[in-house]
Amino acid sequence: MTAAEFDTGLLAPGWAGSPAASATSDAAYLRALLDAEAALTRAQAALGLVPEAAARAVTGAAATGGFDVRSLAERARGGGNPVIPLVADLTRAVGEEYGPYVHRGATSQDIMDTAAMLVAVRTLDLVLADLDRTADRLAELAAAHRDTPMPGRTLTQHAVPTTFGLKAAGWRSLVLDARDRCRAVRKSLPVQLGGAAGTLAAFAVYGAEDPTALVAAYARELGLVAPVLPWHTLRTPVADLAGALAFTAGALGKLAVDVLTLSRTEIAEVAEGSGGGSSAMPHKANPVRSTLIAAAARRAPHLAATLYGSLAAEDERPAGAWHAEWEPLRELLRLVGGAARDAAELAEGLRVRPETMRDHLGLTHGLIVSERLSAELAGALGRASAKELLTRLAERTCAEGVPLAELLAAEPELKDVDVDLGASADPACYTGSAKALTDRALERR
Amino acid sequence: MTAAEFDTGLLAPGWAGSPAASATSDAAYLRALLDAEAALTRAQAALGLVPEAAARAVTGAAATGGFDVRSLAERARGGGNPVIPLVADLTRAVGEEYGPYVHRGATSQDIMDTAAMLVAVRTLDLVLADLDRTADRLAELAAAHRDTPMPGRTLTQHAVPTTFGLKAAGWRSLVLDARDRCRAVRKSLPVQLGGAAGTLAAFAVYGAEDPTALVAAYARELGLVAPVLPWHTLRTPVADLAGALAFTAGALGKLAVDVLTLSRTEIAEVAEGSGGGSSAMPHKANPVRSTLIAAAARRAPHLAATLYGSLAAEDERPAGAWHAEWEPLRELLRLVGGAARDAAELAEGLRVRPETMRDHLGLTHGLIVSERLSAELAGALGRASAKELLTRLAERTCAEGVPLAELLAAEPELKDVDVDLGASADPACYTGSAKALTDRALERR
Amino acid sequence: MTAAEFDTGLLAPGWAGSPAASATSDAAYLRALLDAEAALTRAQAALGLVPEAAARAVTGAAATGGFDVRSLAERARGGGNPVIPLVADLTRAVGEEYGPYVHRGATSQDIMDTAAMLVAVRTLDLVLADLDRTADRLAELAAAHRDTPMPGRTLTQHAVPTTFGLKAAGWRSLVLDARDRCRAVRKSLPVQLGGAAGTLAAFAVYGAEDPTALVAAYARELGLVAPVLPWHTLRTPVADLAGALAFTAGALGKLAVDVLTLSRTEIAEVAEGSGGGSSAMPHKANPVRSTLIAAAARRAPHLAATLYGSLAAEDERPAGAWHAEWEPLRELLRLVGGAARDAAELAEGLRVRPETMRDHLGLTHGLIVSERLSAELAGALGRASAKELLTRLAERTCAEGVPLAELLAAEPELKDVDVDLGASADPACYTGSAKALTDRALERR
Amino acid sequence: MTAAEFDTGLLAPGWAGSPAASATSDAAYLRALLDAEAALTRAQAALGLVPEAAARAVTGAAATGGFDVRSLAERARGGGNPVIPLVADLTRAVGEEYGPYVHRGATSQDIMDTAAMLVAVRTLDLVLADLDRTADRLAELAAAHRDTPMPGRTLTQHAVPTTFGLKAAGWRSLVLDARDRCRAVRKSLPVQLGGAAGTLAAFAVYGAEDPTALVAAYARELGLVAPVLPWHTLRTPVADLAGALAFTAGALGKLAVDVLTLSRTEIAEVAEGSGGGSSAMPHKANPVRSTLIAAAARRAPHLAATLYGSLAAEDERPAGAWHAEWEPLRELLRLVGGAARDAAELAEGLRVRPETMRDHLGLTHGLIVSERLSAELAGALGRASAKELLTRLAERTCAEGVPLAELLAAEPELKDVDVDLGASADPACYTGSAKALTDRALERR
Repeated sequence: MTAAEFDTGLLAPGWAGSPAASATSDAAYLRALLDAEAALTRAQAALGLVPEAAARAVTGAAATGGFDVRSLAERARGGGNPVIPLVADLTRAVGEEYGPYVHRGATSQDIMDTAAMLVAVRTLDLVLADLDRTADRLAELAAAHRDTPMPGRTLTQHAVPTTFGLKAAGWRSLVLDARDRCRAVRKSLPVQLGGAAGTLAAFAVYGAEDPTALVAAYARELGLVAPVLPWHTLRTPVADLAGALAFTAGALGKLAVDVLTLSRTEIAEVAEGSGGGSSAMPHKANPVRSTLIAAAARRAPHLAATLYGSLAAEDERPAGAWHAEWEPLRELLRLVGGAARDAAELAEGLRVRPETMRDHLGLTHGLIVSERLSAELAGALGRASAKELLTRLAERTCAEGVPLAELLAAEPELKDVDVDLGASADPACYTGSAKALTDRALERR
Repeated sequence: MTAAEFDTGLLAPGWAGSPAASATSDAAYLRALLDAEAALTRAQAALGLVPEAAARAVTGAAATGGFDVRSLAERARGGGNPVIPLVADLTRAVGEEYGPYVHRGATSQDIMDTAAMLVAVRTLDLVLADLDRTADRLAELAAAHRDTPMPGRTLTQHAVPTTFGLKAAGWRSLVLDARDRCRAVRKSLPVQLGGAAGTLAAFAVYGAEDPTALVAAYARELGLVAPVLPWHTLRTPVADLAGALAFTAGALGKLAVDVLTLSRTEIAEVAEGSGGGSSAMPHKANPVRSTLIAAAARRAPHLAATLYGSLAAEDERPAGAWHAEWEPLRELLRLVGGAARDAAELAEGLRVRPETMRDHLGLTHGLIVSERLSAELAGALGRASAKELLTRLAERTCAEGVPLAELLAAEPELKDVDVDLGASADPACYTGSAKALTDRALERR
Repeated sequence: MTAAEFDTGLLAPGWAGSPAASATSDAAYLRALLDAEAALTRAQAALGLVPEAAARAVTGAAATGGFDVRSLAERARGGGNPVIPLVADLTRAVGEEYGPYVHRGATSQDIMDTAAMLVAVRTLDLVLADLDRTADRLAELAAAHRDTPMPGRTLTQHAVPTTFGLKAAGWRSLVLDARDRCRAVRKSLPVQLGGAAGTLAAFAVYGAEDPTALVAAYARELGLVAPVLPWHTLRTPVADLAGALAFTAGALGKLAVDVLTLSRTEIAEVAEGSGGGSSAMPHKANPVRSTLIAAAARRAPHLAATLYGSLAAEDERPAGAWHAEWEPLRELLRLVGGAARDAAELAEGLRVRPETMRDHLGLTHGLIVSERLSAELAGALGRASAKELLTRLAERTCAEGVPLAELLAAEPELKDVDVDLGASADPACYTGSAKALTDRALERR
Repeated sequence: MTAAEFDTGLLAPGWAGSPAASATSDAAYLRALLDAEAALTRAQAALGLVPEAAARAVTGAAATGGFDVRSLAERARGGGNPVIPLVADLTRAVGEEYGPYVHRGATSQDIMDTAAMLVAVRTLDLVLADLDRTADRLAELAAAHRDTPMPGRTLTQHAVPTTFGLKAAGWRSLVLDARDRCRAVRKSLPVQLGGAAGTLAAFAVYGAEDPTALVAAYARELGLVAPVLPWHTLRTPVADLAGALAFTAGALGKLAVDVLTLSRTEIAEVAEGSGGGSSAMPHKANPVRSTLIAAAARRAPHLAATLYGSLAAEDERPAGAWHAEWEPLRELLRLVGGAARDAAELAEGLRVRPETMRDHLGLTHGLIVSERLSAELAGALGRASAKELLTRLAERTCAEGVPLAELLAAEPELKDVDVDLGASADPACYTGSAKALTDRALERR
């Protein structure tokens, strides 16, 4: 049995080797479980419920390591969670005198849930940093390309012109929305402490006059929130994480699918800074960052749905709904962590080709401004006649490739119409409020 | 072709006939689409962009009805959305003079998205009212049963005692979490206005000096928020709805699965006010409200996942991601609307049987307080010995049905131990901080 | 309350007005429920358990209509399913003498599930016909374009050439896979008959010597399969439908996303027969059929997942899992029914532009055959040197637009290499086994 | 950086330490990737396309190990898949002479997909063995309890009696359905071989006269099926795996949720062989096997949905849809592998308590046979009167606990009715065709 037996991310180039991968590994969870156990004893010591020396002993033993994560994983099978064997190992490590203070009054779920919140906080901090990097770079792109016209596309077809600045500002606005949601949930994450069935009963037996004070002390030790109620089956924190993370994956997914489209061989309006190679074709420069983000965006909603599904958890601890949360929550955290890393690199490396964008504005021979012409001619001809005329000419433009402006100029009924067809037919002049919208969006911090 | 051709909720007893069903019907969407069109013209009139008379004409035509929803549905097929035929019909209804002002400068998505937000707001108001009713009744139940002990159950087995008050307070806390999330999203929902590709370009052609002012005026007309950017492919509002609604379904689902468990024939600690009958068995009183809420809670995460998946929407309008939102959003709204109605009825009718709860505390012959005994004996015997002793005696209690307290009393090594086994073995005395937690939770408004 | 109150497909241009929509409407379900009730009485008559006249009376009353689907929907709320009120209405319609034979011995689920299977069979027949149409047309396209070279694309970039024939043959092969899966499941769908808890007990009380013979007779009446066991909580048929339908949506989705890509303004290698219009832009010809199929493919996996989730159904009838199946199964059937209709139209109308495809083979200035050149030069230079050389030249080709063949011709180290660079650099000559594969794939019927 | 950095199953007691975990680990995937590379060279040698010595060299190097899975995982990031660095490492390991024959003509996806199929086959073999064990034990249980009556439950309430034999036979029938689906898909899994864009073009350049013969040889080397077409974007095999695995998880989930229900403290009709302990309560014996299976059943549909979603894969290799398959497929395989292991243990250890079942038949004081009495009295009183009478008496029975038979005996209008109320009111006599159905179901092999 070698290290190769374990999962290292071989199937996950999206997060392999990332800080988020480390922050969510089994080792990181083990660390968080030990942190939770140690903090609980310290909180009890702070309230005078256990000797200070016990708190030091447990904290020390928890810090020294030497716990075998693989053995814990396998022994978790008996009782259905890894805290049971961990308490045994930690108790042994603490030694005879203070061992009995380990996990005193707590239930496995107190430790598992608290550890999950610690892992979530630590990973969200990484995610937030990468979202900030991404947003910063997108702000620069938006500002730099405030006046760069490009085709706006709807249902895959050129519609009317837009600007690359507005597009980048839109990407950024989603990234900031993701940041706000991750930040809000990060600040709300609570410790879990309820004892066997959420009544805190054992803590009172062990001497706590007001066990809710212990919850508060526990939260202080870990920098998490003290919840009003134990949340063994009130899974708001997990559901909120699901929502914020699925949102973030989707927000980055929008950036990714746009880059994938715009970097197609035929479009090539943007390119990833350094594309990925191919095992067969020497020339390939694949948009790998976007691809991996897009893959994460496909998976995240399903993982979040699993977590939302676990809200309906029966009794004081459910038989399955809770257990079904553990891996999907971890997977969601690291998928998003990896995607945020990739998004930052993508944004920082993105190469933009304004000339290609401008060239493409001409691809439809003027049809890309048919909305404008339709509007301007409506004044002269009436809306219905204008639309009819343009639809007829648009068909000829499509079929014969003759520029729409030329056909219009030759149209007898437009002889006396007071419309500057030349200016109106210039796509670069028809970007509407794109600049104003970009400026306004960039004001958001 | 009769009305029976249409969907009326035959497969959806969870929402059939509910106010939420009406608020999300095709008729309600048609109403919202017309409201959106009329408001747009009024907003343009308010800025002096179109004659006041046009705004009155469009508003009047939109109000009179006479639009054939089924015909619109079928004609929607050509262009892929119902706004295209609706604009045609509305233009005709408005008449020759003011018809050209209908939908001026807008794109189909402006109207579809705005209408969806209107429907969402209207349905959320119903949901919020029912959540309030539910929370109020649960507060009464929690207060009334503050001191009602019952078995706490984990992984289907009796664990330690809890109280029904704490359970009801927990349900309420989830309902309030749902209320907060629905309320927050309800306040954030924006109008959509961007024109063909989100640049507001056509509005300028039609005379608007600052088209973003038109967005603000449009929002004022409809009581929605004015967005910073058009959100044709920045789907934060839809994703936020998905999260809040999936959360609400799950929060109510927790209540439902608990009631389903507690009303099992063998448990019968609670019963729905008036159970549903059976086509075959005259005696059946089924927990139908809980069943239908539980069914909604199973479906909602998948619907929300579909919506989260549509965040990754390419271009300025995507070919599929947007279209995939329409029905799932509606379905989620009415599922949650129906579930909230059912939850209010469930809470209001719930019958609680404290005697049965108390009887069940005795089912394990005292094992339900083994945690307490373990803790108390740990002081005298050491933690390991205490656990070992209790595990041994617990096995005998299980096998022979002899009360644990009796076995303990007969245990020679406990002769001189200073533990009041009688009091410690009374489950009703071992509810920990249940009352304090209940009180604290009820302080939340 | 007008017809407009009901759902008619306003939000579903993918299936509105389709035969599948009619086959899955509330009216169609009502029809199937009545068919199930009538067939049950006939089956009992066939075994001599009820008078022939009763069977005629029930069949007659079921056929005459006059049932109010909306009222049934609303009254379904009490007991949680529409069969309870339907049995009351049907009993009344049959009249005093034979009314008591209605639904005799059955449970609501027997009728609901049997009706769902009838609806599924009827809709699958429509789906199968449209899959056949689609496959036939794709076979013609594949044969016609057996020799039409086009760029093969991987991760959005030109990779090596392929043919449009092979692409169409691949689409067809997925359509045939879908057909095979739909056909297999269609043939396997069973009646449901178990009575209150799946023991067929009431039928014996009503005189059946061998109630399993009644199951067989019931199946014969409806042209469905007689199951080995009642499947109230053994949901194989529903799960199999989920799998076959999700597969079909995805298979058609592959066709759709390819058409969406290939019909982009910049690519334009194919076009839908008649694109959809726009409410704002006179020139737009949107790939609407593909868009709607793509939307269905996004939604179907989530609906199927809901159904797979209902396999874990507790007891002899579950409280929620069963109820959660009804609407998703219907929605899946009609989404796929609509998508199959759209796919047939898409395939029949698809316009293919071989010249554009051929032009695009030149877009990379020969890089699209770099794999071939790499392989051929490997013989002369060694694999590593060949790859290195080509990577170096590819960079120049990308940067400067100089054809790769030209750069190779100028390369001194290739002076004496025996490779026919001209032929090797012709993309149209590097389609490998595309034709042979196409021919082989077309042999499948 | 220690082994603890990796995932070992700490969050997955459902599969940690199982054979399926080993069969799906990164090491197992690496093994399968190497097997795929070696087999490809051997297949080429078998057709005379490369020297036999090259095949031996590649096979030897692939067998010796020494590949660093973690390094591969991290280097996979550049190109987006692990085959690219693996080919580099393997080429180096093979050495200068035969290195160039490694991966000749193939694309990364050929190797990734083929490896995934190898892993799937190897894991399915484990799953199938555990399904067989489970089905065998369930057959024994069904036969042993053919005559053990117990309450049938619908919507959580006692409905009519059934037998434990029929319940176990039903569980087995689902397990056999799962076995059939897994077996069918296991036999259908193909190698992948298409080269850069699925045309097999490079193989011809390297000398293959008929590259499809190479596909066949490749399939022979690996014991997989030779596909008609390369399936880079025709994902039938993956979708079929998704369906079969989601089905299996759900089928086992049905067993699990029933055991969870029946082993509740208040019901206790069955118990897991050896329940899991608790970190806080010495007496707890939790149904851990069922809990973990139930958790897997909650997750599997979402994983399968992700895979179905990837059917809609654009181009000749998609940018995201393919990458999104890798981890969910692996997770689904090992979740199901772990669940099948747990199911076998659960079935083998299940303790059944016929006396408790029989006792529970009396819990409703005879109401559990109200259907029968209703049917029998219908003959005498008419259906409506019989139902009315029983509904009235049932209410008294519920309220006062007086046995229904007693109330009926006291009913004046039943004085002269010829119904043997004693026999009819014995629940154990009202199990209908349960035995016959059980026998019939057990005939299936």
